[in-house]
Amino acid sequence: MRLSVAFRHAHRSHASIRQSRAGVKVLNRENRFIPDNSAVSYLRVREASSTSGTTETVANFKSHPRKNDGLLYESAVGDIVQRSREELKAIRETNPGLKPTLAIIQAGEDDSLLEVNKKMARKIGLNVMQICLPHQCTEEEVIEEILRLNEDSRVHGIFLHLSQSFLSRSVCNAIKPQKDVDGVSDLNVGRVVLGDQRDGFASPVAGAVLELLARHDVPLVGKMAVLVGVKGPLKVALQFLLQNNGMMVQTCQWSSKYLQKQIMNSDVVVFLEMGHKGLPPTWLRPGVAVINLGSALIEDHPDSWEHRIEAKSDAGVGPLSAALRMQHVVRSSKRWIQEQEYQPWRLRPLKLQPLSPVPSDIDISRAQTPKPISQLAQEIGLLPEELEAYGNTKAKVHLSLLNRLQHQPDGKYVLVAGITPTPLGEGKSTVTIGLVQALSAHLKLNSFACLRQPSQGPTFGVKGGAAGGGYAQVIPMEEFNLHLTGDIHAITAANNLVAAAIDARIFHEATQSDKALYSRLVPSINSVRRFSPIQLVRLQRLGINKSDPSDLTPQEVSAFVRLDLDPEKVTWQRVVDTNDRFLRKITVGQANTEKGHARQTQFDIAVASEIMAILALTDGLADMRARLGRMVVGSSRNNQPITADDLGVTGALAVLMKDAIKPTLMQTLEGTPVFVHAGPFANIAHGNSSVLADKLALKLVGEEGYVVTEAGFGADIGMEKFFNIKCRTSGLRPDVVVLVATVRALKMHGGGPNNMQLVADGCSNLKKQIQIARLFGVPVVVALNVFKTDTQAEIDLVCHIAEASGASAAVPCHHWSRGGRGSVELAHAVKEVASQGSHFQFLYNLQDPIVEKIRMIAQKVYGADDIELSPDAQAKIDYYNQQGFSALPICMAKTHLSLSHMPEKKGVPTGFILPIRDVRASIGAGFIFPLVGTLKVGLPILANQWYPEEFEEPV
Amino acid sequence: MRLSVAFRHAHRSHASIRQSRAGVKVLNRENRFIPDNSAVSYLRVREASSTSGTTETVANFKSHPRKNDGLLYESAVGDIVQRSREELKAIRETNPGLKPTLAIIQAGEDDSLLEVNKKMARKIGLNVMQICLPHQCTEEEVIEEILRLNEDSRVHGIFLHLSQSFLSRSVCNAIKPQKDVDGVSDLNVGRVVLGDQRDGFASPVAGAVLELLARHDVPLVGKMAVLVGVKGPLKVALQFLLQNNGMMVQTCQWSSKYLQKQIMNSDVVVFLEMGHKGLPPTWLRPGVAVINLGSALIEDHPDSWEHRIEAKSDAGVGPLSAALRMQHVVRSSKRWIQEQEYQPWRLRPLKLQPLSPVPSDIDISRAQTPKPISQLAQEIGLLPEELEAYGNTKAKVHLSLLNRLQHQPDGKYVLVAGITPTPLGEGKSTVTIGLVQALSAHLKLNSFACLRQPSQGPTFGVKGGAAGGGYAQVIPMEEFNLHLTGDIHAITAANNLVAAAIDARIFHEATQSDKALYSRLVPSINSVRRFSPIQLVRLQRLGINKSDPSDLTPQEVSAFVRLDLDPEKVTWQRVVDTNDRFLRKITVGQANTEKGHARQTQFDIAVASEIMAILALTDGLADMRARLGRMVVGSSRNNQPITADDLGVTGALAVLMKDAIKPTLMQTLEGTPVFVHAGPFANIAHGNSSVLADKLALKLVGEEGYVVTEAGFGADIGMEKFFNIKCRTSGLRPDVVVLVATVRALKMHGGGPNNMQLVADGCSNLKKQIQIARLFGVPVVVALNVFKTDTQAEIDLVCHIAEASGASAAVPCHHWSRGGRGSVELAHAVKEVASQGSHFQFLYNLQDPIVEKIRMIAQKVYGADDIELSPDAQAKIDYYNQQGFSALPICMAKTHLSLSHMPEKKGVPTGFILPIRDVRASIGAGFIFPLVGTLKVGLPILANQWYPEEFEEPV
Repeated sequence: MRLSVAFRHAHRSHASIRQSRAGVKVLNRENRFIPDNSAVSYLRVREASSTSGTTETVANFKSHPRKNDGLLYESAVGDIVQRSREELKAIRETNPGLKPTLAIIQAGEDDSLLEVNKKMARKIGLNVMQICLPHQCTEEEVIEEILRLNEDSRVHGIFLHLSQSFLSRSVCNAIKPQKDVDGVSDLNVGRVVLGDQRDGFASPVAGAVLELLARHDVPLVGKMAVLVGVKGPLKVALQFLLQNNGMMVQTCQWSSKYLQKQIMNSDVVVFLEMGHKGLPPTWLRPGVAVINLGSALIEDHPDSWEHRIEAKSDAGVGPLSAALRMQHVVRSSKRWIQEQEYQPWRLRPLKLQPLSPVPSDIDISRAQTPKPISQLAQEIGLLPEELEAYGNTKAKVHLSLLNRLQHQPDGKYVLVAGITPTPLGEGKSTVTIGLVQALSAHLKLNSFACLRQPSQGPTFGVKGGAAGGGYAQVIPMEEFNLHLTGDIHAITAANNLVAAAIDARIFHEATQSDKALYSRLVPSINSVRRFSPIQLVRLQRLGINKSDPSDLTPQEVSAFVRLDLDPEKVTWQRVVDTNDRFLRKITVGQANTEKGHARQTQFDIAVASEIMAILALTDGLADMRARLGRMVVGSSRNNQPITADDLGVTGALAVLMKDAIKPTLMQTLEGTPVFVHAGPFANIAHGNSSVLADKLALKLVGEEGYVVTEAGFGADIGMEKFFNIKCRTSGLRPDVVVLVATVRALKMHGGGPNNMQLVADGCSNLKKQIQIARLFGVPVVVALNVFKTDTQAEIDLVCHIAEASGASAAVPCHHWSRGGRGSVELAHAVKEVASQGSHFQFLYNLQDPIVEKIRMIAQKVYGADDIELSPDAQAKIDYYNQQGFSALPICMAKTHLSLSHMPEKKGVPTGFILPIRDVRASIGAGFIFPLVGTLKVGLPILANQWYPEEFEEPV
Repeated sequence: MRLSVAFRHAHRSHASIRQSRAGVKVLNRENRFIPDNSAVSYLRVREASSTSGTTETVANFKSHPRKNDGLLYESAVGDIVQRSREELKAIRETNPGLKPTLAIIQAGEDDSLLEVNKKMARKIGLNVMQICLPHQCTEEEVIEEILRLNEDSRVHGIFLHLSQSFLSRSVCNAIKPQKDVDGVSDLNVGRVVLGDQRDGFASPVAGAVLELLARHDVPLVGKMAVLVGVKGPLKVALQFLLQNNGMMVQTCQWSSKYLQKQIMNSDVVVFLEMGHKGLPPTWLRPGVAVINLGSALIEDHPDSWEHRIEAKSDAGVGPLSAALRMQHVVRSSKRWIQEQEYQPWRLRPLKLQPLSPVPSDIDISRAQTPKPISQLAQEIGLLPEELEAYGNTKAKVHLSLLNRLQHQPDGKYVLVAGITPTPLGEGKSTVTIGLVQALSAHLKLNSFACLRQPSQGPTFGVKGGAAGGGYAQVIPMEEFNLHLTGDIHAITAANNLVAAAIDARIFHEATQSDKALYSRLVPSINSVRRFSPIQLVRLQRLGINKSDPSDLTPQEVSAFVRLDLDPEKVTWQRVVDTNDRFLRKITVGQANTEKGHARQTQFDIAVASEIMAILALTDGLADMRARLGRMVVGSSRNNQPITADDLGVTGALAVLMKDAIKPTLMQTLEGTPVFVHAGPFANIAHGNSSVLADKLALKLVGEEGYVVTEAGFGADIGMEKFFNIKCRTSGLRPDVVVLVATVRALKMHGGGPNNMQLVADGCSNLKKQIQIARLFGVPVVVALNVFKTDTQAEIDLVCHIAEASGASAAVPCHHWSRGGRGSVELAHAVKEVASQGSHFQFLYNLQDPIVEKIRMIAQKVYGADDIELSPDAQAKIDYYNQQGFSALPICMAKTHLSLSHMPEKKGVPTGFILPIRDVRASIGAGFIFPLVGTLKVGLPILANQWYPEEFEEPV
């Protein structure tokens, strides 16, 4: 495409077009500020001048508007360059890492127009990426490159510098509209003609034509223009831009029989591309502005032109359109930056029409069609590249979000906890889900629920309902309950890899020489032996400062190869995500191949793996890897802790867990967002969903939003661990505790059903749990989960007692039967209380002795008179102190069925001494867990058969 | 929007516009076929007439073109209706289930225009779905409904019948362009103005205006039109359609000061919407055609109009645009049908530039950026709704594809098998991947590789490479090797659920009364006891024809509740996807809670689960469920087989496996498609990837395409089972066998390295394997996987011997070092041989006695003199015969390291009797597997430590 611009000399024009039509006004540059009453200036032919025009030149020009036409162009270009440089500078200041880039696809060598573009990019400070295809390349090859650039996050604009024959609609439409800085795609053309320039781009060549006409004060309003050439994005855009400036625009093909007539009638003639024949200058009437984007086909009579600018490499439409193109690239990067910024939510809740009587959970779940998960993600301001869909209803969210929104203030942080549970359940999950349904779908406040992923085991046993129930559910229920996005499977694989490595290592050490072990651990690959980084760390721990495997002494080799794990002191167990009671105690290694190295061990449920606790507490990949490496799997015969790092499996574990670390996005029945991530047990671990999900959600909801997360078991266990372990690790501070109670559970705490006095007595437990929350300085809202059998008197009584006991508010909830609408009162209360501020504090300091920390929890939280350590427990505490593990938080493994260690003691037991049977530690996860009383930890027992018709059959 | 059309009466017009401009021609209806030389007809005001016009009326009209104007409209509408009816009829004939549907979103009640549209839809035979929002609805609510309709596969067009204030750009652009039958989205407008109507829709109202003008023979070419009203899709579309018909078009706002001038200069005036003031008829010059889409603002002088048609409910632009809208809906459904049809591939291979020396597998994998999996899916003709992405590089493909392409002929079916393997490996996977890279990226033939999903266990041990190696790989390697889309995890969960149910059932039966068991199995829910469907089936098997649980006699209850599984005869094992050698033999149930019911058992590797074999052989969900139910888990004390159906777990298993049944799509290094699905072991199972993946791929590649699938171990095992088990189950017939050999393996078969004679001797094994393939009537191409140490003489020798031994071709391959380019010769050979036809036959009939089937394989395939059954084996065969399991194919569990049962016997052993130690059965999968010789089946031994730096660390 060669560009040239010429303005016809009116006075010297040929006779045939010399007459002027009535009603057409003539402009004059002398009185350019009164355009309606001036004559067209006589623009003289001029040699192309350099656009070395610096900022000063442009400024000079501005104050001397009549200087000359060369400067006129420099001014147009200079203005754009100046603006773009400034915008780019502003971009760089806030985004130092960003390098806005124009990608050019060309066939063959650079030509002069390309040089102009590259020079312009340089002047503005843009990066240029050139894709040079051979002259003979195919359309397919061009599209392939475009698709690649579409996906390349470094590229902000794509410019096809190709001959017309390549620019098919398929090629033009292959460009992502947001990178289509030349405005050639159908979508961008549609936006131009509909006048919507916010999201799209108009052809920079069309823009340059408009700019030229404006700079030459060519009158447009009410005038006639003709665009000559084949139809295409440029022609369409130009037509609309001229029309928007008040012109009447005709379009014409070179072959049209009306060509002469239309040109002769026009005040502005634009030749879009080279014609098939020469054009007699007699066709041009005096004063006409001619812009030739094709080539100089008009027979040349230089003396008939007053002003003429040929688009050489550095003047005219070429530089001007290049400058506009670069401006588009700058604008594209600004849009990209805007996209990266926090986006207000545009949540579209799903309509919910609760039925009465309330159908079964699965029927309710199936009756609602979830939004596509990508739509939900878009509504809450996630970028497409932050989402990894797993089918249409689940997606993992990238942790990069934390970095993108690092300057975004967190929302309010709400914990849902419960009174001491009864076998009937209190409905913490349904309250959590009902609350976010109310907040987002009814109060129109951003909110997120953060839930634990349930173990698959119990799903096939008694318990369902981790997805909520009634009209407060996460959907689809089956996806939530089974497999999800494979996190628990990954934990199982990682956990069992450690277990296999332990037994294999013990076996190999028992059956092989130092030398053989050394050869196996540090093999010679292509005759080269090297320590791996993880081995070098181990060598350092052993005090061996050598890096060449051949330098080690036999003693050093022995120390290096022998972990000397004591089979009796292996604490690491295998896990399975099935309630398989027969794996609670087993003997392994009974095959002949294991040569008599059998030992007794057990399987735990997968969610009890320390790796699950790590997943729940970690704040990123590097931290997770470090924690995985620190996991203690047992002790050596001389009582030194042996870690996953010692086994050399940490890298494998990190690889197995690399996807599990990303939280999974789902939605409630009312289409509000939910994160499901991690589900550590609440006895030997801390029973809370992941820190990462909470952190992501707190950023996403924004400063005025709410993140509602749930703690397992009663507040004495789940909430205490949430505060002392999870919040300590994450650094997050809770604003409100929602304490869930039911009349029927309170009656059980009171001693039995059907009596108001029993309700009142049972409230003692509620009161105690409120006090525990207040102990941490966090205000409490009591959510009374109402059943249809509850009387108004009972409801009133509980709310009254709760408020009298220190709760900031106490409200009945009807989410189960009515969805979010049934929790609106709770939502208002939470909003009100959250706005009042919290004075959160930890219960103990990490530096306190282990025993003191345990005692503090026992006395302040459980109400025990004191604790009593077994000799085993005392020995373990001594060992942890000696190993430097004492400054860890405490994770009590106590029955959840009572505030005390005695499951049968309901209400608020007093006058008891809390017995500590044993003390264990999850060094990787980072806590010490005392075993309280006779609590048994092991695989749950599969109580029920499971019948297929209760679950959806695949179709 | 009210519509009216009027043509100004020229003769009675007011004086001020009575004069006619020079050069403007006047049309006359009398000589309508010479439009350039006629006068504008005087169209008289006419009362709206009914469009009850049937097909006959239209036909009549056609032969009497000048009848009257009422009929003129009927004709226009009738023609469109007639065409649409016919198209719809054609659609219905080929797609009887399809009901093309227009969805209308309206605010408030039906109005007359809506009635017109509904009537028109009815006339044509389209379904209408009305979404009636309240008058006060918000823009957000409209968008919400649009988004829902976008996702609704029943809807083919969306019509927003809303006031202008609702039709913001956000609302218009919310409509999926393919359902935007009114052409209001930016994209469809862009398509209209660029003249591309293949994929989009232009405004039907604009179309109706054009149609009206044409039907009235209004001259357009060279004439002037003005469009009055605000900018929008209709105005833009109309402008371009008029321009395309040769008009000069001006646009104008009602507020413009040029309004009068523009109207007075125009031959066609279109009022797009109601103006703000009355318009004096004096502005209209004689003969002008006025189309009023807003309302009758022109001061009415009925006597000045010759022809006038008001758009009442059933005449004029209203019905015409409605007819065109319906035509668009029909066109939209046709496009939908076309999308459903088989699409030719538009594969864009990834460029590969092999380096020398060849880098490590993981370095090669990471150096290549895979295409987004959704892009690959689109290239090979998968529909978006058939894809379930798992991140950006893996996706599950829905089985509905088989139904959609049921009439598409299959492609060619190529099996890759190997000579008897040596510890060095022959490279079957790399040959498979190199072959499809060559076929698709270099020969431009559609091809698909179907691979097994590898067990995660060995990934952390010695073996890598199931993803291929060198420049013939599936990428990304880490995704292929770990987790993938969770299928093996699902199998593990399902398998272990069965195991837990077995032990729990034995335990409960041993510890509880009939009555307690009955209460547990048939619980009373809300005081109602019901048998589940699966229990009713069991009752029938027991000969108890009762359906009310309270009707059973105590004896019947006992028979029903007691499976009486013999703990000694449980054949079902737990599985784990880790090479955990210590689980090869274990004792379970040692905890106190299991009350002494300990028993010895073992873990198998997860891929050895019968559920994996079922996944590999099933052809759909119903079949999978049936097979899962038939799985025999052990025998009762009175020697009856006990199945998963008896345990009542089949539904749970089906739910756990509902996603695993969908094959996973990935890509090769050159961007060609790969299915990864199922990976049953090749000893106790059949060692082939899934039937479903092969079936999907055979449809996708099309008749001229190639599906290359791989069989595990040597051809004597993997290929034999592929033919006799997999092909028998699937009904698919192979066209070619590619037999992989390496010089270095042939030397081992010859007895050692470094000698031409040894190569020649070793070729005996190759020769034998060729003969085995020929035995089944399938032609063979030998692929010699070349190593850089191989000499040309060795290569020539092997190829010569192979061809002399019955191979149709034998070619060297260099895919490992050169990618697909290195396998081009092989690809040509496969193409050539596949075109020659195969005469496939099974080796035995299913009805042959079990012993005869075993003997047939031993003699014909392995070259044994005979077989020898142990007493155990004979007893099992008798048992299977008695249970009716004899008509199953045979799946030999034999060492893969020799054609015989003796791993050390290389080459072609002869003169041996094949000992059958035991015989087992996978009744669900559907085969009997004799254990040959001393072959041990169990968890692989984790031979190596695993070092993290060998694998990618997550970042």
